Amino acid sequence: MPDYQAPLRDLRFVMDEMLDYPAHYARLPGGEEATPDVVAAILEEGARFAREVLLPLNQSGDQEGCLLEGGEVKAPKGFREAYQQFVEGGWPSLAADSAHGGQGLPHSLAMALNEMICSTNLAWGMYPGLSHGAADALRHHGTEEQQATYLTKLVEGVWTGTMCLTEPHCGTDLGLIKTRAVPTADGAYEITGTKIFISAGEHDLAENIVHLVLAKLPDAPEGSKGISLFVVPKFMPDNEGNPGKRNGVSCGSLEHKMGIHGNATCVMNFDTARGFLVGPPNKGLACMFTMMNAARLGVGIQGLGLTEASFQNALAYARDRLQMRALSGPKAPERPADPIIVHPDVRRMLLTQKAFAEGGRMLVLYTAQMLDVVEHGQDAAEREHAETLLSLLTPIVKAFLTEVGFEATNEGVQVFGGHGFIQEWGMEQLVRDARITRLYEGTTGIQALDLLGRKVLMSQGESLKVFTKEIHKFCKAEEGNAELAEFIAPLAKLNAEWGELTMGIGMKAMSDREEVGAASVDYLMYSGYVTLAYLFARAARQSREALSAGSDEAAFYEAKINTARFYFQRLLPRTLAHARMIQAGAEPLMALAAEDFGLGFEI
Amino acid sequence: MPDYQAPLRDLRFVMDEMLDYPAHYARLPGGEEATPDVVAAILEEGARFAREVLLPLNQSGDQEGCLLEGGEVKAPKGFREAYQQFVEGGWPSLAADSAHGGQGLPHSLAMALNEMICSTNLAWGMYPGLSHGAADALRHHGTEEQQATYLTKLVEGVWTGTMCLTEPHCGTDLGLIKTRAVPTADGAYEITGTKIFISAGEHDLAENIVHLVLAKLPDAPEGSKGISLFVVPKFMPDNEGNPGKRNGVSCGSLEHKMGIHGNATCVMNFDTARGFLVGPPNKGLACMFTMMNAARLGVGIQGLGLTEASFQNALAYARDRLQMRALSGPKAPERPADPIIVHPDVRRMLLTQKAFAEGGRMLVLYTAQMLDVVEHGQDAAEREHAETLLSLLTPIVKAFLTEVGFEATNEGVQVFGGHGFIQEWGMEQLVRDARITRLYEGTTGIQALDLLGRKVLMSQGESLKVFTKEIHKFCKAEEGNAELAEFIAPLAKLNAEWGELTMGIGMKAMSDREEVGAASVDYLMYSGYVTLAYLFARAARQSREALSAGSDEAAFYEAKINTARFYFQRLLPRTLAHARMIQAGAEPLMALAAEDFGLGFEI
Repeated sequence: MPDYQAPLRDLRFVMDEMLDYPAHYARLPGGEEATPDVVAAILEEGARFAREVLLPLNQSGDQEGCLLEGGEVKAPKGFREAYQQFVEGGWPSLAADSAHGGQGLPHSLAMALNEMICSTNLAWGMYPGLSHGAADALRHHGTEEQQATYLTKLVEGVWTGTMCLTEPHCGTDLGLIKTRAVPTADGAYEITGTKIFISAGEHDLAENIVHLVLAKLPDAPEGSKGISLFVVPKFMPDNEGNPGKRNGVSCGSLEHKMGIHGNATCVMNFDTARGFLVGPPNKGLACMFTMMNAARLGVGIQGLGLTEASFQNALAYARDRLQMRALSGPKAPERPADPIIVHPDVRRMLLTQKAFAEGGRMLVLYTAQMLDVVEHGQDAAEREHAETLLSLLTPIVKAFLTEVGFEATNEGVQVFGGHGFIQEWGMEQLVRDARITRLYEGTTGIQALDLLGRKVLMSQGESLKVFTKEIHKFCKAEEGNAELAEFIAPLAKLNAEWGELTMGIGMKAMSDREEVGAASVDYLMYSGYVTLAYLFARAARQSREALSAGSDEAAFYEAKINTARFYFQRLLPRTLAHARMIQAGAEPLMALAAEDFGLGFEI
Repeated sequence: MPDYQAPLRDLRFVMDEMLDYPAHYARLPGGEEATPDVVAAILEEGARFAREVLLPLNQSGDQEGCLLEGGEVKAPKGFREAYQQFVEGGWPSLAADSAHGGQGLPHSLAMALNEMICSTNLAWGMYPGLSHGAADALRHHGTEEQQATYLTKLVEGVWTGTMCLTEPHCGTDLGLIKTRAVPTADGAYEITGTKIFISAGEHDLAENIVHLVLAKLPDAPEGSKGISLFVVPKFMPDNEGNPGKRNGVSCGSLEHKMGIHGNATCVMNFDTARGFLVGPPNKGLACMFTMMNAARLGVGIQGLGLTEASFQNALAYARDRLQMRALSGPKAPERPADPIIVHPDVRRMLLTQKAFAEGGRMLVLYTAQMLDVVEHGQDAAEREHAETLLSLLTPIVKAFLTEVGFEATNEGVQVFGGHGFIQEWGMEQLVRDARITRLYEGTTGIQALDLLGRKVLMSQGESLKVFTKEIHKFCKAEEGNAELAEFIAPLAKLNAEWGELTMGIGMKAMSDREEVGAASVDYLMYSGYVTLAYLFARAARQSREALSAGSDEAAFYEAKINTARFYFQRLLPRTLAHARMIQAGAEPLMALAAEDFGLGFEI
């Protein structure tokens, strides 16, 4: 069975040393309680919970799956009890406002903990995982009464939440939804329609489920401007706020999926279910984005968590498995063969995993600081700056970390050879679980359009400039630093090229809008690689400083520099290909007529 | 449920038009019977069998899996009957020597048919698939008596074969095997040991199973020089050659795997099983490579088959699914949204699949011609030339086509969005089935070492030169052809760079053998991309000629040129990254000490 140890040392490096979280927290209202000691204690406790409670349920949950019987869904054995422990431990409320029963700690801390949950049991993590988005929507757009009724319960984790968006005929294109909301005499609505792919739509972990549902009012305008958001509880709260009468929403069936078997992915039928409007009528799409952004960051963290889990187990196997001798001569002559970690190509795979895990962690925790500031920052200019960076980085976190997470979990299988394909070792489960992360909450293609179209080009490149300026400043400051030249020189070059590529696309897009879609995914991947290069360069600087200061953890800092060097030399060159493919433009994609794609096989 | 139509038009293009199979067959002894009409009829019949018999069993086989009960393995429902039809149709014996009951048709024809089997039911295809390797080993190394006893039955398909190589503690490193063969008084051997990952090791499709088993003689030298090959039947043939007494070999358990659920992957226990030496004692490894090479080409074809299957179904979905409007304005204004094939990024994914399917098909059929010549060529120099190319291309066929096959099947899932993750659509099964192809019969890493170390560098680059000279000649011949300049110029450049990169690695490897392993996988991928570029350039030339000649299938040839252009502009730039990563060398991989990989999480 796979093992797991939370990367506490690496978290300390990124948070305390590289990104100066102590100072960051000290400046946040409420953040002053998140002292380094408190943070360390919480992370350690979270690590224990992930390893001791969640990890043992991961493989069994995958094999057992969920069961729908008489309209009720049973999660796999142990999931319910683990969730109760989670609630009793106060984990769901960690980063929620104290006004709604939360502990008021920074969001970034919850994100660091979330990585551990994703590393040990992604399917389980999806039960509480969606509550966060639902709570966000109610916090930002709900009435006081809605907040009093639902938000506190969600924050405590006593109830869980869902996001009911997708329908059989539409996922990305929510303007096409057919679910209807008909006003009732008492100011509520009757919701009728079918939603699919509803994660944790029905289950036995919590006493009630709060559905956030997109639907159309009778007089709604066509398309995405006619969507409204509703809160629809599974059980109507009674006068004491406890679950009362069953509402007209039920699980029609469970999807049979490639992975995350332990999570109930439900078809939800709404049959004149009683619901309440959240936010203004026909403004549901904006409210939905509030949920969506939290969820997107969360999915990026899933990619990271799975990468780390796969890396740790592949590393253990590579040290243990004996096979062949090193090409340069035996490294363990006393044994029948060398451990496979001596082979350069095995090292390439392990270092790929390691670099994406450590790089992803830096990206998540860097972005998490922006989220903290957006939510709690005292200074308006600082908030705006953070908002710009956060909205730029969110699609990168989501799509880049899930794309490389899928690659990394596959490298983990590859390190195991044929054994990686066997369920028992648990490595193939990580691949199957990782596969969904490239799809849900907006596919990689959708994230790429969000990044290039909505975030970068719509702001005339201004949002990107906020970030490339920061990188430029960093490069300038280290220009004369010979020890860092191997990182700074290529980073500065890429940073300049990033702007040029963007301008190039912008120019072409003026005469042909399809150029945006044609460049988008390569652009997103390019952006992700440059972003990680920036963060690895900072990590290298931090490590050099620690070594100069005579740290007694020299091996740790040397390893970090080696990982950065691997990243720059063996992963970053992928930008060469992405840049060239961006420049190739739309023509090679658009020339072929749709009816001619199948001429090789269609009769 | 996924659909499938064999790519008969594209096969005709590659075989008849581009690679001039009619002339190739006319020159082969026995090949003269493979007239274009006969070939077309066989391909059509194979297409029907694949679509009508195999395809309907693919999803059900995946869901049902295999059952081990009382030592007997039951394949999924319908598999046995399909196999009987396969045998009755004479398919197994198609390309076998008439001396052993075969029909004596060219191997290349069987390979073209094999693609269809892999597209429609990979798990089923693995039952007859291994027989080929076992038959090859007996044909090349077996005694006349062994051939009379086993080979005819394997050729007819009445019995199936296995390759029993891997043991729990060794896969790649077969020098470590523990299975023992003890001579008996009558010149036979008693084989004792445990073999794992034995595809089709036990099943109910055929009346007998012929195991080809690696084991060590009592006095065998250490390591890979002490391995011998044995034939061990499940049932000892009686005097009439029919299955008689049960031998001491049995299936201990079935593996639970990520994919190919319909195939029985067995732990095989040999308990003083009666076996017979094949080839000379202690020369088993050489005999094994005879099996292995056939199997490796077969696995490459699996990558191709799955790519084509995923492409066809993603294409159908992309034409059908309505979602969003084209960025440049509605393309189907009469419908609620545009079919997603209008979106450039969806086209990018479809074209990636299409290019890898068509490129892979060209590579397989080009290599298949070499195999025909090696097996049946009349001219010694021609045979030697073909042998050099075949051995160079085999690891590329195996590893490159499975790597890009995995990518392509994943693009298929991605085109489906969230629906791709749902089992019902069948797209995720293709990914799970494709995952094994990167692992078995030697992982990608092993193929890469074979290509770079054993094939290219060990011949001082001579084997590569045979191929790059051919490409060079082609480029020279088309130098002045303006219509082809977009293909010829970049191809010529890459072809030259290929040689330079090889020299660079060779030089570095003289002082550090680890440079070979460090460059190997990037080198293999680079080689694959250049090889496909050569073949696409030839396809473009062929298409231009057909257009100039006023073909009435202009759309087909235009589509081919468009696909070649997409390949050159949107896939081939990946060579930029691979070249750079090759040049980065071993240092970034070897610098980190094995014990320092885990410093981020190990306490």
